[in-house]
Amino acid sequence: MNEKIKVGILGATGSVGQKFIELLNNHPWFEIAEVAASDKSAGKKYSEAVNWIQSAPIQERVSEMKIKKCDTNLESKILFSALDSGVAGEIEKELSGAGFLIISNSKNHRFDMNVPLIVPEVNPNHLALIESQSTKGAIVTNPNCSTIGLVLALKPLIDVFGIDCFNVVTMQALSGAGYPGVSSLDIIDNIIPFISGEEEKLEKEPLKIFGEFNQNQIEPAKIKISASCNRVAVIDGHTEVVQINLKNKATKDEIIEVWKKFKSIPGTMNLPSAPLNPIYYFEDEKYPQPKLHRNIDKGMAVSIGRLRKCNLFDYKFVIMSHNTIRGAAGGTILIAELMKAQNILEKYL
Amino acid sequence: MNEKIKVGILGATGSVGQKFIELLNNHPWFEIAEVAASDKSAGKKYSEAVNWIQSAPIQERVSEMKIKKCDTNLESKILFSALDSGVAGEIEKELSGAGFLIISNSKNHRFDMNVPLIVPEVNPNHLALIESQSTKGAIVTNPNCSTIGLVLALKPLIDVFGIDCFNVVTMQALSGAGYPGVSSLDIIDNIIPFISGEEEKLEKEPLKIFGEFNQNQIEPAKIKISASCNRVAVIDGHTEVVQINLKNKATKDEIIEVWKKFKSIPGTMNLPSAPLNPIYYFEDEKYPQPKLHRNIDKGMAVSIGRLRKCNLFDYKFVIMSHNTIRGAAGGTILIAELMKAQNILEKYL
Amino acid sequence: MNEKIKVGILGATGSVGQKFIELLNNHPWFEIAEVAASDKSAGKKYSEAVNWIQSAPIQERVSEMKIKKCDTNLESKILFSALDSGVAGEIEKELSGAGFLIISNSKNHRFDMNVPLIVPEVNPNHLALIESQSTKGAIVTNPNCSTIGLVLALKPLIDVFGIDCFNVVTMQALSGAGYPGVSSLDIIDNIIPFISGEEEKLEKEPLKIFGEFNQNQIEPAKIKISASCNRVAVIDGHTEVVQINLKNKATKDEIIEVWKKFKSIPGTMNLPSAPLNPIYYFEDEKYPQPKLHRNIDKGMAVSIGRLRKCNLFDYKFVIMSHNTIRGAAGGTILIAELMKAQNILEKYL
Amino acid sequence: MNEKIKVGILGATGSVGQKFIELLNNHPWFEIAEVAASDKSAGKKYSEAVNWIQSAPIQERVSEMKIKKCDTNLESKILFSALDSGVAGEIEKELSGAGFLIISNSKNHRFDMNVPLIVPEVNPNHLALIESQSTKGAIVTNPNCSTIGLVLALKPLIDVFGIDCFNVVTMQALSGAGYPGVSSLDIIDNIIPFISGEEEKLEKEPLKIFGEFNQNQIEPAKIKISASCNRVAVIDGHTEVVQINLKNKATKDEIIEVWKKFKSIPGTMNLPSAPLNPIYYFEDEKYPQPKLHRNIDKGMAVSIGRLRKCNLFDYKFVIMSHNTIRGAAGGTILIAELMKAQNILEKYL
Repeated sequence: MNEKIKVGILGATGSVGQKFIELLNNHPWFEIAEVAASDKSAGKKYSEAVNWIQSAPIQERVSEMKIKKCDTNLESKILFSALDSGVAGEIEKELSGAGFLIISNSKNHRFDMNVPLIVPEVNPNHLALIESQSTKGAIVTNPNCSTIGLVLALKPLIDVFGIDCFNVVTMQALSGAGYPGVSSLDIIDNIIPFISGEEEKLEKEPLKIFGEFNQNQIEPAKIKISASCNRVAVIDGHTEVVQINLKNKATKDEIIEVWKKFKSIPGTMNLPSAPLNPIYYFEDEKYPQPKLHRNIDKGMAVSIGRLRKCNLFDYKFVIMSHNTIRGAAGGTILIAELMKAQNILEKYL
Repeated sequence: MNEKIKVGILGATGSVGQKFIELLNNHPWFEIAEVAASDKSAGKKYSEAVNWIQSAPIQERVSEMKIKKCDTNLESKILFSALDSGVAGEIEKELSGAGFLIISNSKNHRFDMNVPLIVPEVNPNHLALIESQSTKGAIVTNPNCSTIGLVLALKPLIDVFGIDCFNVVTMQALSGAGYPGVSSLDIIDNIIPFISGEEEKLEKEPLKIFGEFNQNQIEPAKIKISASCNRVAVIDGHTEVVQINLKNKATKDEIIEVWKKFKSIPGTMNLPSAPLNPIYYFEDEKYPQPKLHRNIDKGMAVSIGRLRKCNLFDYKFVIMSHNTIRGAAGGTILIAELMKAQNILEKYL
Repeated sequence: MNEKIKVGILGATGSVGQKFIELLNNHPWFEIAEVAASDKSAGKKYSEAVNWIQSAPIQERVSEMKIKKCDTNLESKILFSALDSGVAGEIEKELSGAGFLIISNSKNHRFDMNVPLIVPEVNPNHLALIESQSTKGAIVTNPNCSTIGLVLALKPLIDVFGIDCFNVVTMQALSGAGYPGVSSLDIIDNIIPFISGEEEKLEKEPLKIFGEFNQNQIEPAKIKISASCNRVAVIDGHTEVVQINLKNKATKDEIIEVWKKFKSIPGTMNLPSAPLNPIYYFEDEKYPQPKLHRNIDKGMAVSIGRLRKCNLFDYKFVIMSHNTIRGAAGGTILIAELMKAQNILEKYL
Repeated sequence: MNEKIKVGILGATGSVGQKFIELLNNHPWFEIAEVAASDKSAGKKYSEAVNWIQSAPIQERVSEMKIKKCDTNLESKILFSALDSGVAGEIEKELSGAGFLIISNSKNHRFDMNVPLIVPEVNPNHLALIESQSTKGAIVTNPNCSTIGLVLALKPLIDVFGIDCFNVVTMQALSGAGYPGVSSLDIIDNIIPFISGEEEKLEKEPLKIFGEFNQNQIEPAKIKISASCNRVAVIDGHTEVVQINLKNKATKDEIIEVWKKFKSIPGTMNLPSAPLNPIYYFEDEKYPQPKLHRNIDKGMAVSIGRLRKCNLFDYKFVIMSHNTIRGAAGGTILIAELMKAQNILEKYL
């Protein structure tokens, strides 16, 4: 097992595609063998087609690669998808039909019956769902960026105390809108109290993720959710104000202890992208803050603070996580690592 | 009544003090006769003591005034207070004892038994409370900046449908923290999910404002409130995500109609600072936004948008209002105008 | 002459087009009769085709107008052009050929031999150049946004002392790039030290503007210019660091006096959009600043500060002016006002 | 030499003090043994006295240290000074008199006759100046943040072509003003075209740094310099527009080659904080940018771009470097490393 697994990136020139390339640099298990993008970019050298906006420079190897089309001529059997939702549905379907394993950050197939929607620390058992996919290849999906930090924060509470309902109001970073995304004229000295489709995702995805895996099906969780989403002038890091009702009573100290003690499969398996601690709780009432905490533990942890009693719910608190690392490329890579560690990946090689 | 009423400004060099001076420029009823500030500034020319941060230049007359001390040597009987809460309590008490009428933006006396906490469109009848103040002068207070827009938006719904409880998550502007206030290093590319004392004010002030005036006392309203407050990189304009439970059922259209038809005493009396419409409802789901709507109707209205059903409450929506105009100096001036129009002011001249 | 002159706006939905509409609201002489835009927008109601980003709402009348095509079916003989440079060249040529008077903010015809490039306070006499245009209509142009404030600041110095050369380094606002223009991801917490084509314009346009009008031709001025242009995170208002060598010696006080005493034809004729003073000089060494001074005198003046001796040039100083008012729509409207006041406009009606 | 050298930090709670602590974490040669600060902080635990604003958390060891006073009771003989200039002069003098070696980022002693002002890649030979200091200890200084990147960029050109004069216009980051520094109300959507004392430093420091070391004295270089300094809404990274006249002609390619080939003593000695390359030249005309390039090579390199002919000077270009790493704490640590490598440090242990 000395040789790294060759992977390809679909939608490699976009902002999430770039993040895949940045995070897979020197990855111990995976090696980027191919980059694929729209027909417009195909044929060009990567460094010439991309408008690179990451602060670390493009890795030399990838920078020189010729961009391929997103079709069945790709040679890597494992493909990370950062495709735009306008085209992801069809392409991912075609490629999985042709035997590729697609681990996708796109929203299109998240609610397909047999497609698992995975946060490795939360519902790793749902991966078994792919066995019921009838195609030669398979599709596995990563949730929306605003969902991931949230379900990670709620998971230990659900396990120990149960959750009846939660309310979430988000203040989301600009990188979540892709590039060029939000015009500077729309957001400097401003807030936009609306993100198209976001509230729907945040009210629906946790139900599948927290659902019960039973007879090759996911029974959605029964949790009432309300989400309100806002765009703010932050580059990276989604902040979310959360209010919850617990099924079983808990003190503030008990909740914090449950967060601090939370262990998960990616952590115990020492997956390369797994954070040392998935959850950081801060006592300072001004925390968490995107600028200070988004990069904690490789950008793969969720930061929590301000747990306190609420007049309308049992408790309220604030969470923050990196939306393009934990919430997109990093989370998707962690799924691939989990699949490799559980010997699922090798079936598709 | 050709002559304007002479007024003084306490705390004239701070950011709210400056806003008083800007808004009273060419006021049809009031004329700034004196500016007073801390002992450190007293004796200096106003333009030399102030770090003027308003975009309109200082009016010539005021710019040349010599700053006085905040004591009983002041000659104007009507004083607008923009004093820092560290000193406002004592000074306002002493001056009202000496016969001055203090209309204050400071928090110190808001919950004194006999001190009215006024939003002119919401609880003008509470002004009668000052009759039970035993001093020669009197104190009247203006609520916190994040409270004012909110109670203005809720008032018509309370009148028509009743409200059981509401949840509010704020994204508040930097000018609310005064000057110099928030360091640029703390807020560019960032959010601070905490504002000291703000959630307490927002959970308590509406209860007094919506309270019933009965036998010279205010019976606090019975509404359950939860508030979560955040500081964001916006210069002016507080945005608030609001969720409510109504006492009586209402359709979305009925609520919007109630907002659009809302009439108030300041409006019908044509008070100089009263907005033409206290409430603007926007159909565009990206609205309201601080940069676009904070200056609507002289900065004295509240903008509302995104009214929609909620999974956890009856409805949710977004409000936005200018925090240093409607939420501070402008709101306080409107109280003075109401008192003049109702012939209360003349008792103190 | 009670009736207002009917005008049309070409490129009415873009950011400069919107500014024309905002500034022509209640204009004493002109009335918007038509709005025209690309074929994609033509036929739609204005309020539905536009992404309105001005802080004042669209005037009701214009909001309801049906957008027309930019062709000879337009009925208003006077057209303000805010067309994109990709199409402005052809359209403006065709329309001027058909008898329309085009007063244009687009760059395409600025250096046509017979087309005047006008800043009304600087070279009003150049308007006579249109007499040599052979078409039935005519084209008059407004310079680039970064040029206008600069030539306005230099004009009195050239008149009194003469200027050999100047060096200018700009820090330009985002609205200068149109909408959506610069991505928020590119400019928050950042600077872009390059604006395509901008340095060339700034090194060339002043030579025509300061040129001598002689025998129906403009003899370009002989001034050596170096320009370096940067984009910064400011919404409106271009700031420019300027260094000059004078032909004749002058003291600091003499220069400031020349600026303060500067009178111009638009001012003495009391043109509606002319600033009371074209130039404001500030003694405070922290001034001018875009946030504080861009709206001075209706946004039509240039603010100057920090005049001081330079080790490499005679003097250096800082200027700042509003790039979409003074530097685009407002400047263009002022040209039309000048033409009306000088009875040139009526020839085209 | 297995044991690390114990160092102390003067002014440890300020923003540059924090950066020293961050950068000395796991340093191969130095170990923080003491943190010292104002009398107000002395006696407190470091984590309780500091308002930590770095994105990496405080290292555990330092976080628990008790803050000492800045006096002769300190035990570490090597002290990094991040003292405020209001107190640095006296304290540094007293401590050097008592035998401590002070390597200081403060401005107070930079122009003392016998105190070297060092950029290790530029004038390492000036270190010999400390031999003429008559005290038991010594003071060595690091230049101003806006000077360092600039002299690094100019050094190879001076060596090869000679420089007669240069003009520099800066756009400086907020962290250069310390913490809390610039109010958010003063800089969001704004520029401040003035930084107190900065232009004087930038016009004077390069003359000492590029000066000739001769008979234990520095003969200042003969270069004419003009500097204009501006504060912009960037967190870290000073951008500077530079124009130069060369003594000997050079083509654009020759200049770029000289930059690319530049080697320096810190690099050839492999000092731990030395950048692999002190200078990065970018061909992309939109580069360098603070957000993209400030952290290149551990934040210790200067990024350069846009070299082109100038109408008023021979050439103009843009430089950018990290102001609190290369321009403050990192640069100062590099001086200490150089002194250790040259066996100067050991004299003070």
